[in-house]
Amino acid sequence: MDTYRAPVRDVRFVLEHITPLKALSSLDAFTHAEPDLVAGLLEEAGRFAAEAIAPTNRDGDNEGAVIVDGGVKTPDSFKRVYDQYVEAGWGAVQHPPEYGGGGFPLTVANVVKEFITSANMAFSLGPLLTTGAVYLMQHHCSDEQLQTYVPKLVSGEWAGTMNLTEPQAGSDVGAVTTKAVPADDGTYRITGQKIYITYGDHDLTDNIIHLVLARLPDAPPGTKGISLFIVPKFLVNDDGSPGERNDVEVVSLEHKLGIHASPTAVMAYGENGDGAVGYLVGEANQGMRQMFTMMNDARLGVGLQGVAIAERAYQQALAYAQDRRQGRGPTSEPGEQAPIIEHADVRRMLLTQKASIEAMRALCYANAHALDLGHQSADPVEREQQAKLADLLTPLSKAWATDLGVELTSLAVQVHGGMGFVEETGVAQHYRDARIAPIYEGTNGIQALDLVGRKLPYDGGAFVKGYLGDLRTEAAELGDDLAAIRDALVDGIDVLERCTTWIFEHREQPNDVFAGATPYLRVFATVVGASLLARGAKAAQAAIDSGDTGSFDADFLAAKVSIARFFATQILPSVHGHVASITAGADDLYAVAPASLAP
Amino acid sequence: MDTYRAPVRDVRFVLEHITPLKALSSLDAFTHAEPDLVAGLLEEAGRFAAEAIAPTNRDGDNEGAVIVDGGVKTPDSFKRVYDQYVEAGWGAVQHPPEYGGGGFPLTVANVVKEFITSANMAFSLGPLLTTGAVYLMQHHCSDEQLQTYVPKLVSGEWAGTMNLTEPQAGSDVGAVTTKAVPADDGTYRITGQKIYITYGDHDLTDNIIHLVLARLPDAPPGTKGISLFIVPKFLVNDDGSPGERNDVEVVSLEHKLGIHASPTAVMAYGENGDGAVGYLVGEANQGMRQMFTMMNDARLGVGLQGVAIAERAYQQALAYAQDRRQGRGPTSEPGEQAPIIEHADVRRMLLTQKASIEAMRALCYANAHALDLGHQSADPVEREQQAKLADLLTPLSKAWATDLGVELTSLAVQVHGGMGFVEETGVAQHYRDARIAPIYEGTNGIQALDLVGRKLPYDGGAFVKGYLGDLRTEAAELGDDLAAIRDALVDGIDVLERCTTWIFEHREQPNDVFAGATPYLRVFATVVGASLLARGAKAAQAAIDSGDTGSFDADFLAAKVSIARFFATQILPSVHGHVASITAGADDLYAVAPASLAP
Repeated sequence: MDTYRAPVRDVRFVLEHITPLKALSSLDAFTHAEPDLVAGLLEEAGRFAAEAIAPTNRDGDNEGAVIVDGGVKTPDSFKRVYDQYVEAGWGAVQHPPEYGGGGFPLTVANVVKEFITSANMAFSLGPLLTTGAVYLMQHHCSDEQLQTYVPKLVSGEWAGTMNLTEPQAGSDVGAVTTKAVPADDGTYRITGQKIYITYGDHDLTDNIIHLVLARLPDAPPGTKGISLFIVPKFLVNDDGSPGERNDVEVVSLEHKLGIHASPTAVMAYGENGDGAVGYLVGEANQGMRQMFTMMNDARLGVGLQGVAIAERAYQQALAYAQDRRQGRGPTSEPGEQAPIIEHADVRRMLLTQKASIEAMRALCYANAHALDLGHQSADPVEREQQAKLADLLTPLSKAWATDLGVELTSLAVQVHGGMGFVEETGVAQHYRDARIAPIYEGTNGIQALDLVGRKLPYDGGAFVKGYLGDLRTEAAELGDDLAAIRDALVDGIDVLERCTTWIFEHREQPNDVFAGATPYLRVFATVVGASLLARGAKAAQAAIDSGDTGSFDADFLAAKVSIARFFATQILPSVHGHVASITAGADDLYAVAPASLAP
Repeated sequence: MDTYRAPVRDVRFVLEHITPLKALSSLDAFTHAEPDLVAGLLEEAGRFAAEAIAPTNRDGDNEGAVIVDGGVKTPDSFKRVYDQYVEAGWGAVQHPPEYGGGGFPLTVANVVKEFITSANMAFSLGPLLTTGAVYLMQHHCSDEQLQTYVPKLVSGEWAGTMNLTEPQAGSDVGAVTTKAVPADDGTYRITGQKIYITYGDHDLTDNIIHLVLARLPDAPPGTKGISLFIVPKFLVNDDGSPGERNDVEVVSLEHKLGIHASPTAVMAYGENGDGAVGYLVGEANQGMRQMFTMMNDARLGVGLQGVAIAERAYQQALAYAQDRRQGRGPTSEPGEQAPIIEHADVRRMLLTQKASIEAMRALCYANAHALDLGHQSADPVEREQQAKLADLLTPLSKAWATDLGVELTSLAVQVHGGMGFVEETGVAQHYRDARIAPIYEGTNGIQALDLVGRKLPYDGGAFVKGYLGDLRTEAAELGDDLAAIRDALVDGIDVLERCTTWIFEHREQPNDVFAGATPYLRVFATVVGASLLARGAKAAQAAIDSGDTGSFDADFLAAKVSIARFFATQILPSVHGHVASITAGADDLYAVAPASLAP
């Protein structure tokens, strides 16, 4: 039952009617990304994800990644599929043509990521990290570094990793203690241990390029004294081939709740001598700033994981609910068992999954769309506005989509009844895999602080107020045929605005604001999600009314209207439940001493 | 870090101030259950759970239950601890003295169950099923059957199981096809397969007494044609010792997401001959009615699992948050890392866990209290009223506490950051273990249907309306010093009443009611939980004001007021978020055809 079919039609709908691809393909950078070509690309990506990658998912979970002879061995099926991935160039879609990339918008590349993540989340993490490394390097490396590493990372022949975390430095990246000492030849010697390094070692590529945060001697304390280094597993020969083995080793792998096939490594640098050879990226002490370059991209990538894993689990729950018969449905004959999808409570679980996934997807795609316009718009004012919008949406995408990833995979388990708890069914794996996404790449608590502490203050608050005004304007433009959606949406925007005003009124008491940051983020994201679905519903209704349904059939478009209405009228009102905790302030959180919190 | 300490002080507070033990110990049946003796019993149970059982939890998860030589082998540490459990008589606490039981109220016995479940949920399931078997047998078995089986089940020397489910008969128990054919000697021959049989086989006891639902020849279809049989693993000799092996065998064990050490068996009856020997319980075709006898008890027992597993995970999250240092707290010096419990977002996660657990516990204990009074009150009118109250509260306890069990263990994982995803930390196990409770013993969707379909209609709706009136009266009695709690509670009751009225107004469209049953159950339970915490807060405040704090210290009592206020003012308002989906009706759930729900 645990098959996967890429939701190409749903994605095409988003790219046509919610976050229009046309707005991107009209830009100089993306002239080749015209909708028909992209549609073909996505069909192909969907087929590859479903047919080649998806079948490796259960094997990967059962076999896991293991250390053999001092190196990491990935599951047997991975190497073959990874080679196909490189061959087809799927890793190159979003990267610049000058390094061999496809030069497609992030909006398009992220669809490919979504499909591959649905197919096998553990597999997808290797390419995701490599993509992040390319992104970072293209912005900060020297020409020589670019030429040495980036084309092979773009093609996927080599892989990249990010080495930030140390035992005492998790959310608090400034506490990093790994050392970098200058050598006479202009390179550096890196010593220290890093933990939670995703795909820190593996057997899929000929070389692995580690990007490592470390401190130079006499660097200032905290985040201002962190520098970024390239540390290749194999030093690169003059002809570009992998040469001498560098002093970087995998020490151990974590035994994790999920994503078993993704090696999460403890990495040791320079344990066998005077340090691993490293190359400084850009200027000294700019490591944090450099990392921030890729933060939106990386966080949005994790948000997409929430979408992807929820979609995979939903497809399985839907198939099960159509197949499994139990009890009488509202219209079934006595003695006849109905498919459980006929029961209202099961429908509610399925619709909640479907509508939430569509809202999450729309948000994440809108976020990518804003990033693309922020980078590539011809108009500098629009670039700036879209970049701010992307900054605002990123914590929403990351935290909301991953929290819902957990909640919706749990609903998918529930639809299965007892079968959901049996590992062979496969849906439990999605529930386990989904649980990491709210944690890594900045915990969801950190995202909420980022939203209220960094993003709301843009332009002294004018930016977010302008955005809320835009949401309101768009809601008002919904016609009377969509009145149920319009009214619910206006109500939701009212709630969001009320909470936002409260936050601005309390900006002098930051801890009162922080106390409600997490529920505030949820309200914000839910309203944005509803608003994007409403935009789609408006377009779908207009297409139906005009009789010109384009490449979609009328039933599908009618379903889009229904699903947007379900979200607006039954899920969006959940925002009312969060107002009290958003506006309560911090006092009651600190009223109980830890001694009275303990048993 | 993953140690457990039984929350004896919290429990004593509930039994003194929320669901008073005194109301039970004043009854003839429970004169020996006076508070001091019970307090000692609970201290002892807490110690046993924490010191003897809790250390077996990780081993149990790692080793799991396995089939060896045709029988189930439990983890190595289990047999030793189980023998201690039998020796101390923990399994006998709630059973009637005439069979060797302690004759304590369920309210007290359930505390012992909570502690043991927190200590090791997988271990606790064996005793839980045995308890259920005793309960059922004491109400329906013949004297001879009682004497043959029950004392050994009460002591725990033998174990009991419940055999309901078959592949086509899950929620739909009426679809059972296992056959029972009368033999010449007045016994029966049972043939068929049962699935999901908890502790269907194991090595902890000398005999296992299976209670099996099966159909007699020519039995009417559906639930009206199901009979209940005793099928011992070993037939019992005249001297009461286990004799000839019966034809019942474990076929396989499920490989599950959690509770690895609890064997979930496929059981085969009568595969090697003309059937396993079975003994009819009571009259033919009364199996469903007989099972219903124990349904409240069993469902409440599962609700308690939600409380227990959330408590265990919470204790671990609290300890971690006090130990782990990251970032600056609101009052920390520059360069100093604060324990993460100082961060508002982490506090919010911890307070949400703590307050929810207290509310869930109060609900489950109030439910047991009503069951005890329903059975043992001297006043027949009170017996009837309390039995109805217990019927009303049972689906709330089962569904709400187990849904929250999943949500709160997820929060406990989140507090741990990356460590939460590493299995050795232990908190991920609680998250996995917790996931079964919303599924078994009637899925939570079934509970919601039970609430709206069976319980609300009691006395034509007068019973539930009277109960809401009682909640309202009690809320109004909160003084101005607790005005924040009172106002929030009245608001919550208003919401619940509005939704209840809507349901009664739509009783002729049952599917519209079913469509909102799950969110309605959540609203109902949240209001009841808040109301019970408010009752405790009132008592705590009165004790503080009087200067006579009894056996509790003033800080602890003040914390009870704070926690009740946090629940009332920050968690209870979540009910506003559910009104729309409760009152939406079913149409939008069925508006989208399955073809448009699929990718």
